Amino acid sequence: MMHPDRCFDADPQVRRVARELYDLTRSLPIVSPHGHVDPRLLATNEAFENPTALIVSPDHYVLRMLYARGVSLESLGVPRRDGAPVEHDPRAVWRLFARYYAVFRGTPTGMWLDHELHALFEVDAILDAASADRAYDAIAEKLASPEFRPRALFERFGIEVLATTDAASDTLEHHVAIQRSGWKGRVIPSFRPDAVFRLASRDWCDAVAAVAAASGRSIDSAEQLIVVLAERRAFFEGLGARATDHGVLEPFTEAVSPGDAERLFQRGCSGEATAADQRRWEGHLLMAMARLSIDDGLVMQLHAGAFRDHNEPVRALFGPDRGGDIPIATEFTRNLRSLLNAFGNDSRFTLILFTLDEATYSRELAPLAGHYPAVRLGAPWWFHDSVEGMLRFLERTTETAGIDKLAGFTDDTRAFCSIPARHDLARRVQANWLARLVSRHIIDTSDARQLALALAYELAKKSYGL
Amino acid sequence: MMHPDRCFDADPQVRRVARELYDLTRSLPIVSPHGHVDPRLLATNEAFENPTALIVSPDHYVLRMLYARGVSLESLGVPRRDGAPVEHDPRAVWRLFARYYAVFRGTPTGMWLDHELHALFEVDAILDAASADRAYDAIAEKLASPEFRPRALFERFGIEVLATTDAASDTLEHHVAIQRSGWKGRVIPSFRPDAVFRLASRDWCDAVAAVAAASGRSIDSAEQLIVVLAERRAFFEGLGARATDHGVLEPFTEAVSPGDAERLFQRGCSGEATAADQRRWEGHLLMAMARLSIDDGLVMQLHAGAFRDHNEPVRALFGPDRGGDIPIATEFTRNLRSLLNAFGNDSRFTLILFTLDEATYSRELAPLAGHYPAVRLGAPWWFHDSVEGMLRFLERTTETAGIDKLAGFTDDTRAFCSIPARHDLARRVQANWLARLVSRHIIDTSDARQLALALAYELAKKSYGL
Amino acid sequence: MMHPDRCFDADPQVRRVARELYDLTRSLPIVSPHGHVDPRLLATNEAFENPTALIVSPDHYVLRMLYARGVSLESLGVPRRDGAPVEHDPRAVWRLFARYYAVFRGTPTGMWLDHELHALFEVDAILDAASADRAYDAIAEKLASPEFRPRALFERFGIEVLATTDAASDTLEHHVAIQRSGWKGRVIPSFRPDAVFRLASRDWCDAVAAVAAASGRSIDSAEQLIVVLAERRAFFEGLGARATDHGVLEPFTEAVSPGDAERLFQRGCSGEATAADQRRWEGHLLMAMARLSIDDGLVMQLHAGAFRDHNEPVRALFGPDRGGDIPIATEFTRNLRSLLNAFGNDSRFTLILFTLDEATYSRELAPLAGHYPAVRLGAPWWFHDSVEGMLRFLERTTETAGIDKLAGFTDDTRAFCSIPARHDLARRVQANWLARLVSRHIIDTSDARQLALALAYELAKKSYGL
Repeated sequence: MMHPDRCFDADPQVRRVARELYDLTRSLPIVSPHGHVDPRLLATNEAFENPTALIVSPDHYVLRMLYARGVSLESLGVPRRDGAPVEHDPRAVWRLFARYYAVFRGTPTGMWLDHELHALFEVDAILDAASADRAYDAIAEKLASPEFRPRALFERFGIEVLATTDAASDTLEHHVAIQRSGWKGRVIPSFRPDAVFRLASRDWCDAVAAVAAASGRSIDSAEQLIVVLAERRAFFEGLGARATDHGVLEPFTEAVSPGDAERLFQRGCSGEATAADQRRWEGHLLMAMARLSIDDGLVMQLHAGAFRDHNEPVRALFGPDRGGDIPIATEFTRNLRSLLNAFGNDSRFTLILFTLDEATYSRELAPLAGHYPAVRLGAPWWFHDSVEGMLRFLERTTETAGIDKLAGFTDDTRAFCSIPARHDLARRVQANWLARLVSRHIIDTSDARQLALALAYELAKKSYGL
Repeated sequence: MMHPDRCFDADPQVRRVARELYDLTRSLPIVSPHGHVDPRLLATNEAFENPTALIVSPDHYVLRMLYARGVSLESLGVPRRDGAPVEHDPRAVWRLFARYYAVFRGTPTGMWLDHELHALFEVDAILDAASADRAYDAIAEKLASPEFRPRALFERFGIEVLATTDAASDTLEHHVAIQRSGWKGRVIPSFRPDAVFRLASRDWCDAVAAVAAASGRSIDSAEQLIVVLAERRAFFEGLGARATDHGVLEPFTEAVSPGDAERLFQRGCSGEATAADQRRWEGHLLMAMARLSIDDGLVMQLHAGAFRDHNEPVRALFGPDRGGDIPIATEFTRNLRSLLNAFGNDSRFTLILFTLDEATYSRELAPLAGHYPAVRLGAPWWFHDSVEGMLRFLERTTETAGIDKLAGFTDDTRAFCSIPARHDLARRVQANWLARLVSRHIIDTSDARQLALALAYELAKKSYGL
Repeated sequence: MMHPDRCFDADPQVRRVARELYDLTRSLPIVSPHGHVDPRLLATNEAFENPTALIVSPDHYVLRMLYARGVSLESLGVPRRDGAPVEHDPRAVWRLFARYYAVFRGTPTGMWLDHELHALFEVDAILDAASADRAYDAIAEKLASPEFRPRALFERFGIEVLATTDAASDTLEHHVAIQRSGWKGRVIPSFRPDAVFRLASRDWCDAVAAVAAASGRSIDSAEQLIVVLAERRAFFEGLGARATDHGVLEPFTEAVSPGDAERLFQRGCSGEATAADQRRWEGHLLMAMARLSIDDGLVMQLHAGAFRDHNEPVRALFGPDRGGDIPIATEFTRNLRSLLNAFGNDSRFTLILFTLDEATYSRELAPLAGHYPAVRLGAPWWFHDSVEGMLRFLERTTETAGIDKLAGFTDDTRAFCSIPARHDLARRVQANWLARLVSRHIIDTSDARQLALALAYELAKKSYGL
């Protein structure tokens, strides 16, 4: 069920080198500088509730694949916002999941799930309707044991550092709790102030108020907002944060004058802001965040191009993050020019770019990273975190940017138990890609060994200053 | 001339598995749910006129390749609209075709032609100037025999079902004739009302009038048009239709108010409609067609992104479909949102998307099909129906959408004798792609066997409800 | 350090065929129809100054990669426009270059540099900090010998013809000197009138004046400008030019009326031209250049989509061509329609298209070349002139356009000593790609041999009429 040579090319020469390189990296510690694990897990260290709550419910990769086959979210136990009844029996949800397990064949989600089921939980049969109950019971039994508590798993997974993603207004209580607990696991926050970017949203005023409340300050102007955000960044950094993160539809940046910034702020306050206002506001805040990064050293991550909540009926019934996010074509060259002209030549600044538009890999991102000192390329994101997706990313970026301008692998997951599966898959694909270069004598074996370590471990540490 | 292992990777392991998978599918019946064969062929069952009329003249894939080398369309016997003389001797055209045959090397058209010449017509030499006459005579002799009449070929090809593409105003007389003839071959129409979509075209009023005439009704409003289109769909369905098809430049959809729809209709009637009007009108009609699909169960196909008649001088002299259609960048995420929000969550609806813009495969189409229950992905279309094109499609869509959300293979051809060649090529590429997955232990052999059958046969039947 | 099988797939069958095909082409003369070598080199035939001046300073591929790692351009000896001091010791620059040499691993620049160092200059160690001085001395010694003068290298490289790229106002004095010198090397100019295209630039009037001065005529109107440009083209052609070249951000073309053209010209003269004016003006001049090509037979090259001088601070300090050019998404289908409708069906016209947007390969460029007789596809350009980049280009264009519609390889280099390295890499990749086709029985060995010669040599000669 888990072939030791999975993801390696059949060609005997490539496979031999791939195995050798993978053997160098498979047991390296896991550096996870960007992800969405709930820090509460590791603060409370309570046992996971049941196999469904662990593996199915928090993973919108899984939910969307089942939903796309006509499986209702109600039957998968996703709570409705109107309180209408949904499936409450985790075992019933698990059986449904198992019945549809074949839809994951050939997908990265399928490979991660196989890894979790067979390597972590030692389930001894392929999951399907027949094996569903047995698998459920086997996992449930393991979850009840101390070895499967979150902190024990964290250690068993060999996680050296795990970054979470947290709102600007977050109290970071769980991070505080973890650090006070005496447990040695390194769990750090990341500063994601998206809510105060969305000027035209109904929730913008509340978001600003929340940041104000968290900092014990009032915010009546664009300028004050930046001051308070700088304080919040310092608070995050005090708890170990190494990076900010920004999710925008379009990576537009602009040097907005102070007067215009204030006018935009006031339009947001009065609820009059348009989409065009928001675009400029976001362009302004990205500039401000880059400027702050030069002072406080936080690495800036930019995740651009996800059209969130594309499926409005699903959002209305079930809320966000249920699988209805669809990418759009994304433009970096013109959009980032203001920011890069202002800060991209500064050696104190690091900007890590993520895209869902693969057409930009060779056209825009690699040339940008291959010229601006500040720019690094984030791992292939979301839909592209897959065997073929990672190969395409490596093939299309490294010839122009150079391998050392990548930011290493980020798992970007909410699903705690998928972390080792994701890193393992990435290390396999990296090893196989390097083996292809070696077998074509484009690099030699000694270079390949160095680069395997870099891709699997060192570049992430270095890029995020960990 | 036709190596039994063509299209299979050289690697011995991949090749062994590819052969095994191909052996499972090579003799399966052909399901052809979308194409452009003239139903008259099978209604009259007359012998094909000559090799040129069969192989060269109806195939704009062939015409464009020769034209691109400076071969005039006149010398290829394409009739001019001004009646000026063109080559009338089919043998002379054939010789020209043969002289240029080397230009097809490494193209799918070349592989299909080889298949037709060598496998079907048993021509025993590579086509070139020297072998032209001998090949012509050999084919002509075969065409005169009863075994090469259209229906005999239909049966020999193992076609289980063949869908044609027909205007909304079509009387479907040939489909009626086929069904009355007592012949058992299943030839079904598809409903393609493109002419009534093109509001700004000079021919729009005539197109509406033709639909009205076909239905024996008058059409004086947008609302009536929809009613009559619903009747026409029912008429098509009565003759076996399973699908509609829509060719649009941009897949824009919008919920247009009834009042606006009427205003657009009236502007079309008065010849005042602009390109912007047409865009909204098309967005409105696509919504209306989706709504009707939920009632009558016809599968909706969308072919977006071909800039038709790019070469205006060629169109003016020779009419449409002479090879001058060029793709444009295409946007699905925002354009389809209205339609998918309204109907994409409905289990009664199937929308099959085709694109000429490969950048959308992983960026938009796979995420849409990997979330919305209604969406399936059509086979790689037109320029992308090729060895590398199919591999790129499979690699870029299946990791996100899952293999079972593909709609199987469609040959999309006007060239009747290329049907088995096209399906054979597709089955070879599918087998080889699956073999690559098996050899990398991403799927196992038993899964690969199931998926080979699905890709070659079952998914097309299932997606089109055949 | 230079494996004889580099770039060939590990698969024994593919490698065997790749070797055989490469052996056919490796020693063919070099045809270089497009590049940026300074003709002064070959006119004066002076020895190269030192290894740094030869290998590091003129190569913006090298400069951008080092700059992207935080190496200052000052420390690389790039002169500042404000005269501020920069490193003047070429050996110090060389040591810095050597220290960072590992960043080129897996990049085409690295492969070209290795070829230059080890094959041409017989440096016997991998370049790094330790070997820097030894390598510098070895190269410097060679450069002092007559065998390493430019003309001797030209002959040793086996260059059959080398085209330079020259402004419309250029006196071509070096070309004249070469031809008068009695030396037999064929060095020809190319006509690149970009400066008179940039209507909205501050330098436009000077550019027009320079062309006027070069021709000894006055230019007071758009019409006169075209007349003078026609004369300049004839002058270039008299010195052997076979092609024009046009660098535009967007390949927009439009049939502008004479009156509008004059108004645009006058706006340029008065310094009032906007970006929109320039767009139309460029569209008009491209049409005019195509029209002239039909008369004088010069092949038209179009290089579209480079956003020049993206890094304004670097441009302000160091001037253009320091690595800060970033591609943008590019549209050909609609933009080229006016030009292709007017001239694309004319057998006297050749238009060679280059792009930095790989998404257009299969979507727009191959369909255009696969239909219009005038269109050919230029080699993968700039960032895409790499192992994987060339493979992607070949895979995505040839199935639709046919192999014989490519324009062969162009090295496009300023770095004289990289010419054989670049052609060698291209011939290896071409051989390997053809070997993949042979091993899958898509073409046979005899076709592959012909096509290898075509790709390496004949297509360039034929496309440029050399």
